[in-house]
Amino acid sequence: MTVTDIASLVGGVVKGNAELEIHSGNTIEMATEDQIAFVLSDKAEKIKESMAGCLLVEENMHAEEGRTIIQVKQPRNAFAKVLQTLHPVEHPPQGVHASAVVAESAILDKGVAVAPAAVIGNHVRIGENSTIGPHVVIGSGCTVGAGCCISAGVVLYAGVRLGDRVILHAGCVVGADGFGYVFEEDHHEKFPQVGTVEIGDDVELGANVCIDRGALGATTIGDGTKLDNMVHIGHNCQIGCHVLIAAQTGLSGGCVIEDYVVMGGQVGMGEQAHVGAGAHIGGQSGVLPHRRIPPGQTVWGTPSRPHREYLKKQALVERLPKIIAELREIETRLDHELDEKREK
Amino acid sequence: MTVTDIASLVGGVVKGNAELEIHSGNTIEMATEDQIAFVLSDKAEKIKESMAGCLLVEENMHAEEGRTIIQVKQPRNAFAKVLQTLHPVEHPPQGVHASAVVAESAILDKGVAVAPAAVIGNHVRIGENSTIGPHVVIGSGCTVGAGCCISAGVVLYAGVRLGDRVILHAGCVVGADGFGYVFEEDHHEKFPQVGTVEIGDDVELGANVCIDRGALGATTIGDGTKLDNMVHIGHNCQIGCHVLIAAQTGLSGGCVIEDYVVMGGQVGMGEQAHVGAGAHIGGQSGVLPHRRIPPGQTVWGTPSRPHREYLKKQALVERLPKIIAELREIETRLDHELDEKREK
Amino acid sequence: MTVTDIASLVGGVVKGNAELEIHSGNTIEMATEDQIAFVLSDKAEKIKESMAGCLLVEENMHAEEGRTIIQVKQPRNAFAKVLQTLHPVEHPPQGVHASAVVAESAILDKGVAVAPAAVIGNHVRIGENSTIGPHVVIGSGCTVGAGCCISAGVVLYAGVRLGDRVILHAGCVVGADGFGYVFEEDHHEKFPQVGTVEIGDDVELGANVCIDRGALGATTIGDGTKLDNMVHIGHNCQIGCHVLIAAQTGLSGGCVIEDYVVMGGQVGMGEQAHVGAGAHIGGQSGVLPHRRIPPGQTVWGTPSRPHREYLKKQALVERLPKIIAELREIETRLDHELDEKREK
Repeated sequence: MTVTDIASLVGGVVKGNAELEIHSGNTIEMATEDQIAFVLSDKAEKIKESMAGCLLVEENMHAEEGRTIIQVKQPRNAFAKVLQTLHPVEHPPQGVHASAVVAESAILDKGVAVAPAAVIGNHVRIGENSTIGPHVVIGSGCTVGAGCCISAGVVLYAGVRLGDRVILHAGCVVGADGFGYVFEEDHHEKFPQVGTVEIGDDVELGANVCIDRGALGATTIGDGTKLDNMVHIGHNCQIGCHVLIAAQTGLSGGCVIEDYVVMGGQVGMGEQAHVGAGAHIGGQSGVLPHRRIPPGQTVWGTPSRPHREYLKKQALVERLPKIIAELREIETRLDHELDEKREK
Repeated sequence: MTVTDIASLVGGVVKGNAELEIHSGNTIEMATEDQIAFVLSDKAEKIKESMAGCLLVEENMHAEEGRTIIQVKQPRNAFAKVLQTLHPVEHPPQGVHASAVVAESAILDKGVAVAPAAVIGNHVRIGENSTIGPHVVIGSGCTVGAGCCISAGVVLYAGVRLGDRVILHAGCVVGADGFGYVFEEDHHEKFPQVGTVEIGDDVELGANVCIDRGALGATTIGDGTKLDNMVHIGHNCQIGCHVLIAAQTGLSGGCVIEDYVVMGGQVGMGEQAHVGAGAHIGGQSGVLPHRRIPPGQTVWGTPSRPHREYLKKQALVERLPKIIAELREIETRLDHELDEKREK
Repeated sequence: MTVTDIASLVGGVVKGNAELEIHSGNTIEMATEDQIAFVLSDKAEKIKESMAGCLLVEENMHAEEGRTIIQVKQPRNAFAKVLQTLHPVEHPPQGVHASAVVAESAILDKGVAVAPAAVIGNHVRIGENSTIGPHVVIGSGCTVGAGCCISAGVVLYAGVRLGDRVILHAGCVVGADGFGYVFEEDHHEKFPQVGTVEIGDDVELGANVCIDRGALGATTIGDGTKLDNMVHIGHNCQIGCHVLIAAQTGLSGGCVIEDYVVMGGQVGMGEQAHVGAGAHIGGQSGVLPHRRIPPGQTVWGTPSRPHREYLKKQALVERLPKIIAELREIETRLDHELDEKREK
């Protein structure tokens, strides 16, 4: 791919050698002469040292004579697009491997690839060009959309529905029973979990993510939402669209997360908590059961509170030694007063 | 199943159409005319809007003319029982799939189902009617009781013992090595983990749960205990009976959890902590190593403390701004006093 | 193995019956007459009750007449060595199981064992005597060193490199995509993750651990480092040598952990945090993004701070009720003063 091709892909302006061939992308520090990298204006000093053949830079950035750059509005976004082209996802060979076990009633659309030892149940439907990795288990009655990529060892329990272009990383478990029991005299009886899971289009779930099925009705994940590794979503949660949730966060049953929410890692949410659209939850925060976080608010801490309050509380605790010193001083002055009076 | 059948199953009293056929259960909001739902007295106002064919209600609750209800002591418990009958767990076909690999010395009792690509080692014993999911690995010398349900991809390391009616969700790992090392000069040497894991009857483990084997002796989990997704149990923990542990909680090596303890999600326990019978540990709490929590106590926070103390501490920190204001006021008054005196 | 053999293995001095045959190891409480146990001087009172045939004790410890002991510098380390000999790791039969799927271009050195249904991709190279468990998936272009033990269900994405004697417990996922997106107008676009993962020699990863591949360049784990169950390592982290990380800890992208660091369980680290050599991070601590922790420092809490400061802060909050009481007393005294003055 020439520099010209890349510039036209990202809508940028070339300065320098437009005919240069670029084979792959790398960081500005590690890129070599047949590689492309990107740099933002706050790191512009790195340009000089870079060995990269071509750099994606901001529109107002320049470089020394002899260096090839592409000026573009958002270099990082442009670089992502270039990487998608230079490093295309490898598709496994189409068709069903001899060692896979596919039910007769399953329907696989054209272009589907099923890897060794995958197990596909009754009445499953898999859309065009989806790839099913080794040892994936798709329970009876599941629907997988088109262009999905299901990595090794993923398990979909019966009846789960995935949209199009869903990416599930290795070890995800979708549709296991929620954690629901009723107490009978001296022991816990299982509350049957008869609902399901519905996942929208363009969702990506990290490795070893667990999404429990609804107790009744569905646990849902909206279009474009991305979950990092080992996130836990309890039964009957309703996750909106374009939500980001970082690694190891856990949501108890019945939480509602509206669109464009961003959650840090290791956040814990009590049952039926509700997070308004566009809110941000800081890493390791604990959101109490039934708590409502308004749209757009940023919260931190356990129990979670608005970020400004959280910082203020932190600062107050930091000030405690000073407060105590002041108290001592006042006491001393007061003692002194009293002494003087007594002496009179 | 008619309303009469259901009432007799749960020991309730029918008001309305006893002959109505009910096919499944649902929430009170979503249930339709051939479905049953339940409602507690604090949500009684929902009855009017419900389209459910039949409702399980508390003994003292009533409904408008023409609606079919079953009065019962504990509607939620009764509903769980009805769901178990209306939505029975589907049993896979008995017998061993051709692609499973079962050691000759393994003993499978009658009614056992072994799914594709399961691997069962030497001298394994599996009890009546247990189902072994796809890609399950059962190491040599393991014992699985009767009526167990081992989901896809579960791994039992060698020598693990499960009781009867145990449910293991997909991706559980039972019996991996504990995290034990000795420091030798400049590096960590493995402390061999030669113990095992013993799990009682009626235990349920969520998806991707990890239970480490004992270093020496066994890690044990008592009858009726339920663990949510991604719980970590370190080597040589002794978990009692009828314990509930919510998702992503982690116990270091050698913890003792007595019967009927309830732990929230994302709790962390240091090594050899001890939780007395019936205690409650709030979500995200951190229990220090060797800490003893008395029976029946409720604790929260990191480091964990009795709930009342925890709330009091929270309240005190909230009051800090007021305390500082009071301090300022006293200072002002004192300054004022001194000024007056000087003026005299 | 006789007591003499054991003493010579660990460089210890025998007192008692040097010819006694020892078959296995156990705890001092549970060991029987053909077993060995160890005891440190702080638990010396346990010796009397023990039924163990032989005890490893410290060099300055003694026992009553008739008991067999081996005096040694570090009894726990010596015991680990004895266990390694008495309880050797069982090696599965060499060779490739008929149900495994191994690419023609893969190179397996001598002594390699490949279990049922393992899937080994193109151009994979596996070193001498490594064992590949059931359902393991090794993506194309991976390198596995000699003497490795890869347990059931582990997934190595394409291009991952492991050193020698690496132990991966069941369900580990190495090389899945990092959590990287760019925001385009109204949705998140995937930032392609085209880097890899490089793991050194003598590394051990617990069950269900997730190590993400680099976005560009590699995520690296140094020699001798040990990770407990369900640890999450984000893209492009650089973990040094001989690091210990306890269960359920999560590192965001780009963190640097230098040699000999010890981290507790459930720690969370923001992106690009940096932990100096030999530092200790307490369990459940939260390290802010870009934070630098100096070599050798011990930190606790969220946000993390030096241990002494953390304890001081805890103590100050504990003292709040006393501080408030003092404030009240001062107020009373001041009121009293004013009253007296007014009366004059």
